[in-house]
Amino acid sequence: MKKTLIALAVLSTASAAYADEGMWMPQQLPQIAKDLKAAGLKLDPASLTKLTEFPMGAIVSLGGCSASFVSPQGLVVTNHHCVYNSVAQNSRPERDLLANGFVARSLKEELPAAPGSRIFVTTEVLNVTDKVVTADVAKLSGKQRSDAIEKNQKAIVAECEKDAGHRCTVSSFYGGLEFYKIKQLEIRDVRLVHAPPAGVGKFGGDTDNWMWPRHTGDYGFYRAYVSKDGKAADYSEDNVPYVPKHHLKLAKEGVKEGDFVMVLGYPGRTNRHRLPSEVAYTFDSNYPAFVKASGENLAIIARETKDDKDAALKYAGQVASINNYYKNRQGMLNSYAGSDFLARKTAQHNELKAWVNANPQRQKEFGADIVAVEKLIAQRDAETKRDFNLSYGQPRLLSSARSLYRLANETQKPDAERKAGYQVRDLPRFKSSVAGLVRTYDEKVDKALVLHHLKNYLAQPAAEHNASFNAALGLKAGMSEAELKAAIDTLYAGSKLGDAKERAAWLEKSPADFKASNDSFIKAAVAMYEEGLKEEAKDEELAGNIQQAYGSYMKAKIAFMKTKGQAVYPDANSTLRVTFGKIAGRDHGADGTTWTAFTTVNGVAAKATGQGEFNAPQAQLEAIKNKDFGKFVDPKLKTVPVNFLATLDITGGNSGSAALNSKAELVGLAFDGTLDSIISDWDFNKANTRDIQVDLRYMLWNMKHIDKANNLLKEMSAE
Amino acid sequence: MKKTLIALAVLSTASAAYADEGMWMPQQLPQIAKDLKAAGLKLDPASLTKLTEFPMGAIVSLGGCSASFVSPQGLVVTNHHCVYNSVAQNSRPERDLLANGFVARSLKEELPAAPGSRIFVTTEVLNVTDKVVTADVAKLSGKQRSDAIEKNQKAIVAECEKDAGHRCTVSSFYGGLEFYKIKQLEIRDVRLVHAPPAGVGKFGGDTDNWMWPRHTGDYGFYRAYVSKDGKAADYSEDNVPYVPKHHLKLAKEGVKEGDFVMVLGYPGRTNRHRLPSEVAYTFDSNYPAFVKASGENLAIIARETKDDKDAALKYAGQVASINNYYKNRQGMLNSYAGSDFLARKTAQHNELKAWVNANPQRQKEFGADIVAVEKLIAQRDAETKRDFNLSYGQPRLLSSARSLYRLANETQKPDAERKAGYQVRDLPRFKSSVAGLVRTYDEKVDKALVLHHLKNYLAQPAAEHNASFNAALGLKAGMSEAELKAAIDTLYAGSKLGDAKERAAWLEKSPADFKASNDSFIKAAVAMYEEGLKEEAKDEELAGNIQQAYGSYMKAKIAFMKTKGQAVYPDANSTLRVTFGKIAGRDHGADGTTWTAFTTVNGVAAKATGQGEFNAPQAQLEAIKNKDFGKFVDPKLKTVPVNFLATLDITGGNSGSAALNSKAELVGLAFDGTLDSIISDWDFNKANTRDIQVDLRYMLWNMKHIDKANNLLKEMSAE
Repeated sequence: MKKTLIALAVLSTASAAYADEGMWMPQQLPQIAKDLKAAGLKLDPASLTKLTEFPMGAIVSLGGCSASFVSPQGLVVTNHHCVYNSVAQNSRPERDLLANGFVARSLKEELPAAPGSRIFVTTEVLNVTDKVVTADVAKLSGKQRSDAIEKNQKAIVAECEKDAGHRCTVSSFYGGLEFYKIKQLEIRDVRLVHAPPAGVGKFGGDTDNWMWPRHTGDYGFYRAYVSKDGKAADYSEDNVPYVPKHHLKLAKEGVKEGDFVMVLGYPGRTNRHRLPSEVAYTFDSNYPAFVKASGENLAIIARETKDDKDAALKYAGQVASINNYYKNRQGMLNSYAGSDFLARKTAQHNELKAWVNANPQRQKEFGADIVAVEKLIAQRDAETKRDFNLSYGQPRLLSSARSLYRLANETQKPDAERKAGYQVRDLPRFKSSVAGLVRTYDEKVDKALVLHHLKNYLAQPAAEHNASFNAALGLKAGMSEAELKAAIDTLYAGSKLGDAKERAAWLEKSPADFKASNDSFIKAAVAMYEEGLKEEAKDEELAGNIQQAYGSYMKAKIAFMKTKGQAVYPDANSTLRVTFGKIAGRDHGADGTTWTAFTTVNGVAAKATGQGEFNAPQAQLEAIKNKDFGKFVDPKLKTVPVNFLATLDITGGNSGSAALNSKAELVGLAFDGTLDSIISDWDFNKANTRDIQVDLRYMLWNMKHIDKANNLLKEMSAE
Repeated sequence: MKKTLIALAVLSTASAAYADEGMWMPQQLPQIAKDLKAAGLKLDPASLTKLTEFPMGAIVSLGGCSASFVSPQGLVVTNHHCVYNSVAQNSRPERDLLANGFVARSLKEELPAAPGSRIFVTTEVLNVTDKVVTADVAKLSGKQRSDAIEKNQKAIVAECEKDAGHRCTVSSFYGGLEFYKIKQLEIRDVRLVHAPPAGVGKFGGDTDNWMWPRHTGDYGFYRAYVSKDGKAADYSEDNVPYVPKHHLKLAKEGVKEGDFVMVLGYPGRTNRHRLPSEVAYTFDSNYPAFVKASGENLAIIARETKDDKDAALKYAGQVASINNYYKNRQGMLNSYAGSDFLARKTAQHNELKAWVNANPQRQKEFGADIVAVEKLIAQRDAETKRDFNLSYGQPRLLSSARSLYRLANETQKPDAERKAGYQVRDLPRFKSSVAGLVRTYDEKVDKALVLHHLKNYLAQPAAEHNASFNAALGLKAGMSEAELKAAIDTLYAGSKLGDAKERAAWLEKSPADFKASNDSFIKAAVAMYEEGLKEEAKDEELAGNIQQAYGSYMKAKIAFMKTKGQAVYPDANSTLRVTFGKIAGRDHGADGTTWTAFTTVNGVAAKATGQGEFNAPQAQLEAIKNKDFGKFVDPKLKTVPVNFLATLDITGGNSGSAALNSKAELVGLAFDGTLDSIISDWDFNKANTRDIQVDLRYMLWNMKHIDKANNLLKEMSAE
């Protein structure tokens, strides 16, 4: 019985014989063409591989969110939560765009998006594995290998970015087995076009986050602007709307349960190809520690900002983020607790090893690497575990000082030789990060957090301590809490880095200036510098070895799966992917319920409380009451659908992704998953996993019947 | 199309051709024997008509709750919320029975239930219509008719209660068409035997009240005690457990979706036979006003008790009750808003009238009465509407003073001639009500409530004012809010009735003492007395006429339904009833979900937060985690079921009712309905209406695996 179970589990891990699981690279789609056709795709799968053709040419990244062009005038649709900062930063007490929503009735009324907003249009994806891991590099190991790979990556990026207005990256796939160059047009003049009121776009708030039934109108619109000659450019009144080569057409017909649907976007990160030991470490140690620390951090921040509204506002974003991951990780742990995931993972891994060892040639090619990768990963996990409290206990200003000093040192070298992250191309982001700290930092809060975590750090065995950190900060194993507090007080009192101007000034200084400084955090940064480089070198030694062994392990896995006729998709890494499946409810929901595939505006009215997270606009409630639904009524539901579930495989980063029907017409936007299935980032569970889309009909109904955004409907040919 | 709809609606109103709807009097069951058999009942329906036989002999009332004997030693099972006060009043800070639960391991450990707790064993139900509405009474109308009916009722009760230890009532059925004498053994020595921790018995609290999915272990146990010679008696250490003639057996096999189930208990009140005008008045005027006033009262009480914990505690019960009805009535209004109930009701009524008028004899017998009842009800509703603010604006101490003065006057007469409610048999309850006021009254809160509602009262046209009330309280149409406040302040300042001793002293005083008093509320009560009697006489005039006309209208309705082959059950009136149907989920739940028929302990673990309303005991959570389920696992659900839905027709008062399978074995306890179907008190909706039971297996699992109540399991032969 058990064997059958294991065999089935292995089958379902990387098979495309069943839809739903899999974040496929566009170029992989011909491999699974049969499955796509069987699932209902009406296009030629090969047409999805062409990044500059329809429909892929319409799919863009916002950096952290996905989006798509929906008009020939550069109109971009994404999630409300992806344009949220742009709405917030354009809001004024007398003109609260967040609360009331915003519609630009003409190009002139469009507002600059939040500083740093970008629209990335992928123009080229190229396998550059041979140029990154050249024959010479393949002979190297450890740090030498890491260095050589980084050098090759930087060279490819530099060459690629000679094409002005483009951003290039070299991304690792299959755990370092393959490398791809991704070239993107980086549109820097982004404008806010439309966002519904928060009572629609963020309806349900944190309460409904990761929940079903869901009723969130999570959509918003940007527009891409370029210079008159069509190049990426900074904001200018003279700029004109970008004319994309392709844009998505809106489906004229609504979707229904059972329909084919696919989502095209930029998923951030998954962990489907991890080793059993990584699963055990993550779920038995790292996530529980993370959840515990998150709970403690929330309590400390709440306590310290209770009577300080200014500080509370500064930490509001961090609190939201901690809460988000707290709920996420706890959700994963809950799923893990009742599952046989580790057992299945172990059985799969053992099966792979047995296959490798069953053949002398395979044994020779992969055997040693698989043994090595297990050892190396265990070493890396042990180090992460050792440094857990330390990573939480580092003062923010010390991190800032260390980065600034590193920058001063790197700046001494020619650009190409600088460490990645400290090159000329990185400086704008670096500077805005240094400048931005003031908006999210309060000394007493930071101090309380640091004190808490360093107390835990000092309670670890002395052998686990970081000597240079202890020396630089004046910490000693066995010191009392009072002594620790005094040491921390002295540190914070001795630094002016909390001042934004002071901090910015250090961006321009030389290593000598740093060495001459009396600022406590600068001094600590200088004191830790040499030891830090040694630690980094050790990390790179390990990373180089892991890259080599992990790549080999993945090569074995792909070969093994091929013997079963199964394609293997790489873990998500913020590059363009396709997932396909169907619209479907679930035969189990919260205990005592099942989930239907759609929610409707009836649920909006039922949940509306007139305030807080469920503050649906009065005009919308009136329209629901009066059944003012126009052509957006679903024939079966007899009302306007709001959100729908699908069996799609998405993760963070997919927010705002276009959901397309079998003819590649837009039918909605992916925006969330559900709490009891987010463990799918590690372990895809077909029975549980559903992602959540906002239905196009709900968007259009709101735009037409409530917000009267007729200009945009016309632009999208939705009239 | 419309006609079909109406015809169907009429068919479903009082038909037993479909199970589910109908709170049947036991003696009616042979009329619907075929339906009972078809639904799956394995007993002879006639056996359910015998009140002193099995199983009816096991079904008891607690007065407001239902219950049943489950052992030959007088052990009684009911809902946790029905034994709640007894648990609370036996709790001490150092022995918190509410939080921790309570199990008496032997008879000696059982605790006295809350003062006034009763177990009523129905011993006789007799149709006494002919003795109440005698040939002479039938000739009377108005107040004379009311008085004569009350006199006859009192005589029957007095005769019946000569049998010591019994409580008798004469209840009206079918709106005054029929009267039944109900004789009950009134067991006065009631003891608390077992209640689970509040984290089981009240799991979900107000949040889950009227909600599905539900996970409430709403069960608890009492024991009935009598004197050694088997008579009802006050509490005494010498008393012995009552030996009921019959008790329920526990089902050995669990229930599953689709199974036959019936609930036997004492439903309080329904309104299925009301006129269209009563529906319109209730949902367009009375309930909206009630909801508005409830919201205002909650806000006022919250404001006034904010900094006064003592006052807050005094009003906690009232706040809970207001909240409960607030949610209930608002729920009904929500259902009503989207329904065609009034149109259907009107169509049914018109159909009845058409049937009556189609035949000269029927026209003669019923025609005038139906016209009359419509007019009389409209008059009554108009008066209720007029006095709405007044009823909320009467100071509590004034009501108390008026009752006390009425008592003093009634006491001058021989017992049989006194107004019902002021007879010797009523005195114990009367006294405890006067004494109990102190626990639920705070002057500043009462004053604030009165001020608010009298402001609204004074804003009504002067013609709607009550002259004697205005005169007695010094109110005048058009007076300013400041003047009103001053008048109220004077009133409250001039009375000592807030003092419990002072109030109790008035129980013994003569009318002359009242007339001589200078206490402001006593003076007002005396001043309003004569006018009050006149108003009462007017009400009785109306009531007598309504009784006659309504009875005739119901007689016509029953005759009309008989022509369709359908039995008519009377509206609920706190007498013993049977409802039958089946265990069933629902194809629609909250928007985006459906409801399954069962919840399980998985849901308890998922909802548990470790605090507040979702504070499941640690031991229970451990048992769930360890799958320590013993024999209580449902074969299909693979875990322990908690609550289940059924299509049964219950209402307030059914709390604690035994849910029985087709062999009349106990399978659970009814304890709630769901918010979107509580309008079924007026309009039974087969698609929506589900009641909620706690599954016997959940009770027994908790008792065996968590609370180790082995003595009780053995007593119930559950081992």
